[in-house]
Amino acid sequence: MSHPQRRSEPGPSAGADGFLAVDSGGSGLRVAAGIPGRGPAGRRVTREPVRTGQRGIDAGHLLAQLVPLARELAAQAGIGRFTAVAVGAAGLATLGDALRADLPGALARDLGARRVALAADAVTAYAGALGVRPGAVVAAGTGLIAVGTDLTRWRRADGWGHLLGDCGGGAWIGRAGLEAALRAHDGRRGGSAELLARARERFGPVTGLPGALYPRSDRAAVLASFAPEVAACADGDPVSAGILGEAARHVADAAAAVHPAGTPVTVTGGLLKLGDAFAVPLARELAERLPDAPRVAAEGDPLDGAVRIAERLATGPLTLPEDGRMLSVTTLPGG
Amino acid sequence: MSHPQRRSEPGPSAGADGFLAVDSGGSGLRVAAGIPGRGPAGRRVTREPVRTGQRGIDAGHLLAQLVPLARELAAQAGIGRFTAVAVGAAGLATLGDALRADLPGALARDLGARRVALAADAVTAYAGALGVRPGAVVAAGTGLIAVGTDLTRWRRADGWGHLLGDCGGGAWIGRAGLEAALRAHDGRRGGSAELLARARERFGPVTGLPGALYPRSDRAAVLASFAPEVAACADGDPVSAGILGEAARHVADAAAAVHPAGTPVTVTGGLLKLGDAFAVPLARELAERLPDAPRVAAEGDPLDGAVRIAERLATGPLTLPEDGRMLSVTTLPGG
Repeated sequence: MSHPQRRSEPGPSAGADGFLAVDSGGSGLRVAAGIPGRGPAGRRVTREPVRTGQRGIDAGHLLAQLVPLARELAAQAGIGRFTAVAVGAAGLATLGDALRADLPGALARDLGARRVALAADAVTAYAGALGVRPGAVVAAGTGLIAVGTDLTRWRRADGWGHLLGDCGGGAWIGRAGLEAALRAHDGRRGGSAELLARARERFGPVTGLPGALYPRSDRAAVLASFAPEVAACADGDPVSAGILGEAARHVADAAAAVHPAGTPVTVTGGLLKLGDAFAVPLARELAERLPDAPRVAAEGDPLDGAVRIAERLATGPLTLPEDGRMLSVTTLPGG
Repeated sequence: MSHPQRRSEPGPSAGADGFLAVDSGGSGLRVAAGIPGRGPAGRRVTREPVRTGQRGIDAGHLLAQLVPLARELAAQAGIGRFTAVAVGAAGLATLGDALRADLPGALARDLGARRVALAADAVTAYAGALGVRPGAVVAAGTGLIAVGTDLTRWRRADGWGHLLGDCGGGAWIGRAGLEAALRAHDGRRGGSAELLARARERFGPVTGLPGALYPRSDRAAVLASFAPEVAACADGDPVSAGILGEAARHVADAAAAVHPAGTPVTVTGGLLKLGDAFAVPLARELAERLPDAPRVAAEGDPLDGAVRIAERLATGPLTLPEDGRMLSVTTLPGG
């Protein structure tokens, strides 16, 4: 077929209709773009997490990072406008009001969006891991959230952030490890000399820890940065092994709370990088709590999930259930 | 003796030499002033906690609140200058570098200070509770810290703040209570329906909790505000009772780490307001961990302790041990 493509709305941003997929998490934005049906043609990453302010997730800060990257990707891939956009964002369910209010209109204005999906990061993790099958996915990185669906509704468990929950996630493990280090420093019961030595290697004298942690806006990420040290100590240090065992129980608790009977369960996210020190107790706890759930490996990551959602948005109905907090689709004028 | 008092340095701020005592904590400043040897002549309270920034405790923010109050108290009590000032501050040991660097000079300039004591809030709590006796004091409010001394050196345990420790304090209890409430909301194991009901009464729908908590700068105080609800549920709810029992164990752990053999132990601070739900397990845990330590009631509070330190500074040597982080005395030119 060598006919030149005809466009219904030629204009200054000439090019194909594209999709844009975004994963906004604790370490920054990950963005992919392409032509629907062909998968991502390009990807970009930022290292600046989107700020959270009095109105929740800061839509302006997200847009200020996203729009220039999207235009770069559009130029690279020959895309004229991003008719379908899927944004997965950490904290969307509880801190996403401003994002839901402001983002679709802004994406229509700046990038030509016609349909915009806003998804909790757990939903993009789900879609990346399992696609549109029923099941349960635990997304365990800095934070931790479990979502499950029978394709009629979503259930979620945890994902409350590092002060109210995210039990068993990276910040939870790192925080528990630092507490055990400081117990050893103080001579309190329950301390770990191994973790104290690791904390000193990582952060210097521990009396400087509060000053290094509390003024920062990325406290959860700082805490999570210590989780690999806990995993590294677990082979000889019962305190570290105990922390990882309790983390694994929390993961299983969250999975069990959302799991539809007879469906698969998947654990995905950066926590799996902790290796066997975490994987072994995790397998044991999941087998005990969900003995009849086949455990499957994730097919892809949250950005893959956002890509799947965006490509479906561009071409037809989204078979995952919509619900105001977990996954909402806005169709804009002209869309 | 009716001779008119002679002053060595008459000036615009004529009046007696006074002392100023300050307790800077999570709920604001408490200030007392008077003539040495006569106890406090006046007191003031603010409701704005001193900010913590990149340089630690913000000395400028403390001064901006303190100086006007001190001048009011001086006018009221006929004080010309505050030659002796004692400031007890939460976080001094770990976040006090800027305070130690900036405060003595500023107090000399603005209030005529000649000797300035900067004390960790745990040291003022100690001095208020036990005076200059050897012993151990656990100061348990929003946070938790234990200090002990044999009068040659200080030992401290915990006081690391709500993310790294303060185990068993008000923020710790409230946080654990909210986690249990959210476990019930999610259907995770370990939840408490009673605490969930209390959380809804206090904060509205729990899906709004992260948005109500994380953007605030006084997160520890918000968490601690839920501790009384945990205490109120403990009489029928095993989850709440379990949280308070674990808190009591943490208090005993901290006390045991700093306690000189054969000396008394005191628990002081707002946590005692939780009543028997906390006092009963606390007495049990202290008796088990420190069976030979007589438990005594606090004689006074941290502001009383700051008053004791300031009055001693004005009149002679301070018999409590000095150490850079816990208690430091600066003698200024002319002092």
